[in-house]
Amino acid sequence: MKKFVVHQLLHHAIITHPEQVIVSDGKVFTYKQFYTRVLKLANSLSKQGVKKGTVIGVLDVNSHRFLEMHYACSMLGAVLHTINFRLAPEQMVYSMVHAGDEWVFVSDVFAPAVKPLFSKFPHWVFMSDNRNQKLPEEAQKAFFYEDLLEQGEEKEVDETEKIEENDVFSIFYTTGTTGKPKGIQYKHHTILHGSIQLFHHLALHEYGARVSSRDVYMPLIPFFHIHAWGMAFFPIYVGAKLVLPGAADPAGQLRLIQKEKISWMNMVPTQLQMLLDQKGFGNIKVLTGGSPFASGIAKKAHQAGVAFSLIYGGSDQLGTAISIVPEDVDPDTEEALEWRRVGMRPLPLVEVSVKDKEGHEVPHDGETLGSVWVRSPWLPDGYYKEPEITKEHFIDGWFRTGDLGFFHKNHLLYVADREGDAIKSGGEWIPTGMLEALISEHPAVAQVAVIPKKDEHWGQRPLAVVKTSGKVDEKAISDFLLSKVREGKLAKFWIPDAFIFVDDIPLTSAGKLNKKVLRDRYSETV
Amino acid sequence: MKKFVVHQLLHHAIITHPEQVIVSDGKVFTYKQFYTRVLKLANSLSKQGVKKGTVIGVLDVNSHRFLEMHYACSMLGAVLHTINFRLAPEQMVYSMVHAGDEWVFVSDVFAPAVKPLFSKFPHWVFMSDNRNQKLPEEAQKAFFYEDLLEQGEEKEVDETEKIEENDVFSIFYTTGTTGKPKGIQYKHHTILHGSIQLFHHLALHEYGARVSSRDVYMPLIPFFHIHAWGMAFFPIYVGAKLVLPGAADPAGQLRLIQKEKISWMNMVPTQLQMLLDQKGFGNIKVLTGGSPFASGIAKKAHQAGVAFSLIYGGSDQLGTAISIVPEDVDPDTEEALEWRRVGMRPLPLVEVSVKDKEGHEVPHDGETLGSVWVRSPWLPDGYYKEPEITKEHFIDGWFRTGDLGFFHKNHLLYVADREGDAIKSGGEWIPTGMLEALISEHPAVAQVAVIPKKDEHWGQRPLAVVKTSGKVDEKAISDFLLSKVREGKLAKFWIPDAFIFVDDIPLTSAGKLNKKVLRDRYSETV
Repeated sequence: MKKFVVHQLLHHAIITHPEQVIVSDGKVFTYKQFYTRVLKLANSLSKQGVKKGTVIGVLDVNSHRFLEMHYACSMLGAVLHTINFRLAPEQMVYSMVHAGDEWVFVSDVFAPAVKPLFSKFPHWVFMSDNRNQKLPEEAQKAFFYEDLLEQGEEKEVDETEKIEENDVFSIFYTTGTTGKPKGIQYKHHTILHGSIQLFHHLALHEYGARVSSRDVYMPLIPFFHIHAWGMAFFPIYVGAKLVLPGAADPAGQLRLIQKEKISWMNMVPTQLQMLLDQKGFGNIKVLTGGSPFASGIAKKAHQAGVAFSLIYGGSDQLGTAISIVPEDVDPDTEEALEWRRVGMRPLPLVEVSVKDKEGHEVPHDGETLGSVWVRSPWLPDGYYKEPEITKEHFIDGWFRTGDLGFFHKNHLLYVADREGDAIKSGGEWIPTGMLEALISEHPAVAQVAVIPKKDEHWGQRPLAVVKTSGKVDEKAISDFLLSKVREGKLAKFWIPDAFIFVDDIPLTSAGKLNKKVLRDRYSETV
Repeated sequence: MKKFVVHQLLHHAIITHPEQVIVSDGKVFTYKQFYTRVLKLANSLSKQGVKKGTVIGVLDVNSHRFLEMHYACSMLGAVLHTINFRLAPEQMVYSMVHAGDEWVFVSDVFAPAVKPLFSKFPHWVFMSDNRNQKLPEEAQKAFFYEDLLEQGEEKEVDETEKIEENDVFSIFYTTGTTGKPKGIQYKHHTILHGSIQLFHHLALHEYGARVSSRDVYMPLIPFFHIHAWGMAFFPIYVGAKLVLPGAADPAGQLRLIQKEKISWMNMVPTQLQMLLDQKGFGNIKVLTGGSPFASGIAKKAHQAGVAFSLIYGGSDQLGTAISIVPEDVDPDTEEALEWRRVGMRPLPLVEVSVKDKEGHEVPHDGETLGSVWVRSPWLPDGYYKEPEITKEHFIDGWFRTGDLGFFHKNHLLYVADREGDAIKSGGEWIPTGMLEALISEHPAVAQVAVIPKKDEHWGQRPLAVVKTSGKVDEKAISDFLLSKVREGKLAKFWIPDAFIFVDDIPLTSAGKLNKKVLRDRYSETV
């Protein structure tokens, strides 16, 4: 029986698609050439003492070198630490020390920022084409990536046969809006199974960001975040063309889309908004997610010919659910578009349960909110070296996501909010994510975050922090929401008590609204 | 972490699609109702002493009761023996004794045939709506299926939590054209992974029998054969409507297609030919396979609007490859149609190697024949209680299929023949499957089998046994093949030395040409 390990995908691809290509940084590599480079890299690292269990940190945007590191580490059994470059500097260092990084690979973009760390970690590799730079003397050993690669033999590494599917493949540290970053280890079979299953879900449903072997893929989600939501694996798994955007800005991304005929991308809603502002962007499939998706962006995307699907998941649960058009709904209707924004179906093999405070499943009635619990074959074991936090979230084979959601009557899931973000007003939940999506439907609202403010009578009441894109005031938004109350879209008591208008709303490293900062700034001040 | 076991699919389906339906024998069951019946059946069997490891034989066409047995056995950890009803009677009994059947479930269609066995196996269950029949006195215990089911409680069985993904789920006995039937045990995770992966392959490729959650499925492949090529699992996995044809003949199948709006079916080429003869059949997706597919049927199917794909695999290797239209070929061309007949791409995660006699991979040149070897995450461990035969086929993690094939230049696979069927003429292979496909392109040839005849000079020479559908003689077919030689489709020495015209060609239980019978009958006589 064959093992379910990451490098196996490449072994399969070079038999079925040796001439298929990976485009990165203006260069084109066939799968066969890519495989050759991976072999040389793995052999060279092996000669340098890298072996099963060695932890290697990589700090890079989405490049072919970062992708090569995925497959070389897999062949050696080394643990790939995909360093989260959106962490604050001291958190990033914390993650590198906590994970036990022995090697650090860093690309030009990030090299200046890590200078103070050269003496802290023993081995450094510079993923740069500029080999005239001086290598740091503080490090025990330092290499240019291409030099290291050139020193390797082009043969299978002996260690590869010994890698098991239950071995650790990679480690990643979540942002955490509070406290220190939490590490999550991914095993070969769990990261592969979980990553690829989300593309199976997409392939099995006809509308939205459906995938096929004919698509050309470009991930805007960085590799550090669940391996670009599985994009480090899937195109090679299906034998498709993969384009890596490096550090391209939205204009550069658009040029790549046009030049390389990209047909499928993943990105967070903020990135989608920026691309929608580029003239000529459209007619493409997009998987997005990370926060409730405002109907304004959804409509704008739809008008531009963006066939989108929304994903729900996270680094500590992997992919859980993706939005679909229910099979009894005509795909060409407004209703279908709305389902793709609010109706998530769990991936095959994933169980989702929404529970009330007593731990009972809530009725599937389209309104009763509860805590979202998830069970799947690819749940991680817990947080790395954090038994206490693990115990709070990984319970009896289930993962308590900390999200608040409900089931529609047709059993599709809606994730409304983080439990910690929801507002408890007079004993009733107000899900801020859902409320934000409604407020952002107002044409003059560019972005909005709803946070709680203390209230003597109700306990908490909602406060909206609004970034405008036109002339609008508190009364106009309240009136707009009252009209939504009449349409049955929200309860009257959800309407915020106060509005604050700001120039910019702070975001987290993952591009989500940074409610911690907003709460610190505004919760007590109104 | 959740276990990858069969009944888990049903647990998932009743959350996501409780109102989806299974249609069988004129009855309609929602998934929720189906689940209730499965629970009652499992509890009732548990009360009767069925437990983990109990072997239960089922002898039935594709019915809801047979499907219920899949999920009830899974919950109990009982081993489902899907009895191969196309075996000769004495072989069938051999398989039941060899597998260790303690219970036998039999439907009305097969009950008369098994009468002599009532005293041989202790427990019998009659899957019949006619409860006025007399139950056999020879059996230790005998029940009507619906009575047994009614006696069960509607609750989860305690045993269910203890079932592991490496536990045995089922056992099946292959026909074997020579010798006694060979048993293959399927574990939960291998049968699920292998079965479902073939549908992922179909979903990931745009042309042919692509599957989606909107399709309505009807399997003509019997459940005994790899659980209807995975159809016992996939519709429930994706939450789709499933229609079970029972013992319907082609006319009855067509009525079901029209009434239930079937959009996807699986079947062997013989069944496809019979359906194509029915007026009104077409505009449907079909997965077929089991033997090289003649271009005549392919064209006829295409003209009827049948979007077909061809599968290569077997009960001892599960699904291995499915035909595709290469990504650089326009799907609306004749070339695309031809690739769907002759160009198989291994399923993702499957490795296929075609080796010469020295064990080296043959060049991918579109002509060099070699032995087909397969490696996949779901290969069975070997043949049940047959260590010697196992050793001959399961070698170093690979399965030696015993098939002869080659790789096209674009790395798609063509399986040309069984090694034992190919003809060695003057030291060169003549693949009979491929030759048969060419001969059957002649408009007056209905069916053809090519077998070897002894030849003093060449060792072996081909002999064609032909069933005609019009006026044709030896010279006409030879001339036709000579024109194919000029087109570069075959080598001149492939043209058979002799032709025998017959009224009918014997088939095996799997619907393949029975070459053993033909060789016994004709090889020495010409």
